[in-house]
Amino acid sequence: MKEYIFQIAKQAREVSYRVGTASTEQKNQALRAMARRIRERAKDILRANTQDVEIFDQTGKSQALRDRLLLTEGRIEAMARGIEEIVALPDPVGSGNYITTRPNGLRIERIRVPLGVIAMIYEARPNVTADAAALCLKSGNVAILRGGREALHSNLAIMQAIREGLEEAGFPVTSVQYIERTEHEVVDDMLQLVGLIDLVIPRGGESLIRSVTEKSKIPVIKHDKGVCHVYVDATAERTKAESIVINAKCQRPSVCNAAETLLLHEAYPYRREMIQALVDHGVKVIADEVIRQDFPDVQAATEEDWYTEYLDYTISVKVVASVEEAIWHINTYGSHHSDAIVSESYGAIQKFLTGVDSAAVYANASTRFTDGGEFGLGAEIGISTQKLHARGPMGLESLTTEKWLVYGDGHIR
Amino acid sequence: MKEYIFQIAKQAREVSYRVGTASTEQKNQALRAMARRIRERAKDILRANTQDVEIFDQTGKSQALRDRLLLTEGRIEAMARGIEEIVALPDPVGSGNYITTRPNGLRIERIRVPLGVIAMIYEARPNVTADAAALCLKSGNVAILRGGREALHSNLAIMQAIREGLEEAGFPVTSVQYIERTEHEVVDDMLQLVGLIDLVIPRGGESLIRSVTEKSKIPVIKHDKGVCHVYVDATAERTKAESIVINAKCQRPSVCNAAETLLLHEAYPYRREMIQALVDHGVKVIADEVIRQDFPDVQAATEEDWYTEYLDYTISVKVVASVEEAIWHINTYGSHHSDAIVSESYGAIQKFLTGVDSAAVYANASTRFTDGGEFGLGAEIGISTQKLHARGPMGLESLTTEKWLVYGDGHIR
Repeated sequence: MKEYIFQIAKQAREVSYRVGTASTEQKNQALRAMARRIRERAKDILRANTQDVEIFDQTGKSQALRDRLLLTEGRIEAMARGIEEIVALPDPVGSGNYITTRPNGLRIERIRVPLGVIAMIYEARPNVTADAAALCLKSGNVAILRGGREALHSNLAIMQAIREGLEEAGFPVTSVQYIERTEHEVVDDMLQLVGLIDLVIPRGGESLIRSVTEKSKIPVIKHDKGVCHVYVDATAERTKAESIVINAKCQRPSVCNAAETLLLHEAYPYRREMIQALVDHGVKVIADEVIRQDFPDVQAATEEDWYTEYLDYTISVKVVASVEEAIWHINTYGSHHSDAIVSESYGAIQKFLTGVDSAAVYANASTRFTDGGEFGLGAEIGISTQKLHARGPMGLESLTTEKWLVYGDGHIR
Repeated sequence: MKEYIFQIAKQAREVSYRVGTASTEQKNQALRAMARRIRERAKDILRANTQDVEIFDQTGKSQALRDRLLLTEGRIEAMARGIEEIVALPDPVGSGNYITTRPNGLRIERIRVPLGVIAMIYEARPNVTADAAALCLKSGNVAILRGGREALHSNLAIMQAIREGLEEAGFPVTSVQYIERTEHEVVDDMLQLVGLIDLVIPRGGESLIRSVTEKSKIPVIKHDKGVCHVYVDATAERTKAESIVINAKCQRPSVCNAAETLLLHEAYPYRREMIQALVDHGVKVIADEVIRQDFPDVQAATEEDWYTEYLDYTISVKVVASVEEAIWHINTYGSHHSDAIVSESYGAIQKFLTGVDSAAVYANASTRFTDGGEFGLGAEIGISTQKLHARGPMGLESLTTEKWLVYGDGHIR
């Protein structure tokens, strides 16, 4: 098993220098061919997916998971179109923003180069296979992919199309490899291959991310949970406040940028109306004692609630005395993902934007916008909740590192 | 012990929001006050250092280590001046290079913000205490410092001056803390404090760095060894080639950007003269069989030699058939730190700069220039040999992360 994954990683490292120096046009040709092959092989991919879904149905797992696994003609077309959108994105490789000539005449540049070999570990959604392959290739990286066991047939069918696309454009098929063996130990062994793999990106549930982070000797970029807040200031306009809170909570409660906690300034005049609006939208409210004076039927919040990501039509609500208290609460209990203030006060907004230590901080907008596409980065490989290397939506640039080029004429020190 | 380090980290986290939002002028005032206090307390610092050196002399350890530990009036003045140079550097906090307005009217900015709490673990040199404190403060970070046990008295005396400077400028003294307890376990416990400390920077020998990297649950930026190469191409000019090789090897052999391996193109006409020049400069040559045909007394290189960082007047030499072979050798055996080509061929230089996967790649200049000051970044906190977050010399910007600010007017998704 060790030998199996070692060979995959070694082959990846070997082709990485070739893929890393391919021109944007060469990479785009491969991406276009991949998209075309996915369309051509749509029937095969659907057939493989049916196999996966049939096996899944025997397990009696949740319908939500089944929906993530399921492919349709429309979803395969979206996969192909997703790759074509990546063709249209600018290539970060070779770009730079630091050029200087030193007093001694040395000319120094810092340019973006691929990271090298990226391993991506994900769960049920087969479309991640196409997304990750395309994002890694466009940024000049070699990919090692490992999807969920339940999507194995679908992923292998997609990989077949990807390989055909790579070959058509003259890239080695080992530019994108898939770990076909489903044992857990293969991943554990892979996470030890320092020097062969440059970055591991786990994408999925909390337990997957924790397990990868704890075991990996290779650098990991985490996509952790989102305990996101909306703070409604004393000066907030009622319509903006209610529509932002309802949108942040209800538009898609199962995602990481949905709101989990509402903080209300004690002087905000429409407190009762806000709670009522949430209840009217079918949201279960869990609140502090101040709210419960007006709504005695509401469940009392415990300390644990302030840390909780419900991922459901549930929200915790707390009344605070000031913007400072709101900031303190968010920095203490939040997950530093996405947090919003609704306010008409310039001072309160400035304090909030400066004071909240999160990847994305919003003034008068829903937390739901934290997304590579919405932020203008194009397709994203995930949303980083850590501070090092990449924070927030990760576009192509996050899949590169830097290199210093120094031009001299016999310079010595 | 756990409680001792937990309290230090907790206090650091608590003041981090205050330090992180201080203005550049406030931070510069504190830095200037720190520099002044270090000058004022020069006698106390020298007295404490004498204590350290006396204890050190009883251990019989190496003179090189003693020299690192030793402070003089000149070195204390250099320490103060170093802080004043950091005052003059631009503050990265609040700068940005991504501003966009989305089609829906959302205005999105990405700006640099401090990482938060940085722990720095280093060895004998007491001046690192002042350097690290100043670089962290200037970039809006709170510092937790842990120097070598042999420099404890010196470091505490320097910390006294730093604290006085912080107080004078109205900063909490916990903005820079020093771990006074010398037990190893304190560091081990600290490396578990995820959420309280954002980054750990080990700076020192290989064993320190390996130990911190293996134990830490907190992200680490490594400053690893440098197995640096100079490749002399067939077209290299003799004078440039010899002066660059001699400089890269001999100007300061004990540092990470000194050359350890010389690769000579088989068609370079002055091979014998190059080896002779190295020998004339007192360098011990360890070489492959091709060289040994001309210099039979030279020690034969083993596979192990190509991986070795000698940090001494020793160099391994290999003859290669092409620039491609040189690139392959460097990527395979090197440490991805700093590597140079000497050549007059445009094509060979382009291939080398593109193909070598190192933090700094040089054309016709000595590898010894890899340094924050030489690259125009000002003072550096170290040289990163990893690809994530920071690569090569780390200036102030490397001590920051990013934050997305989103300005809406009731925007929902």
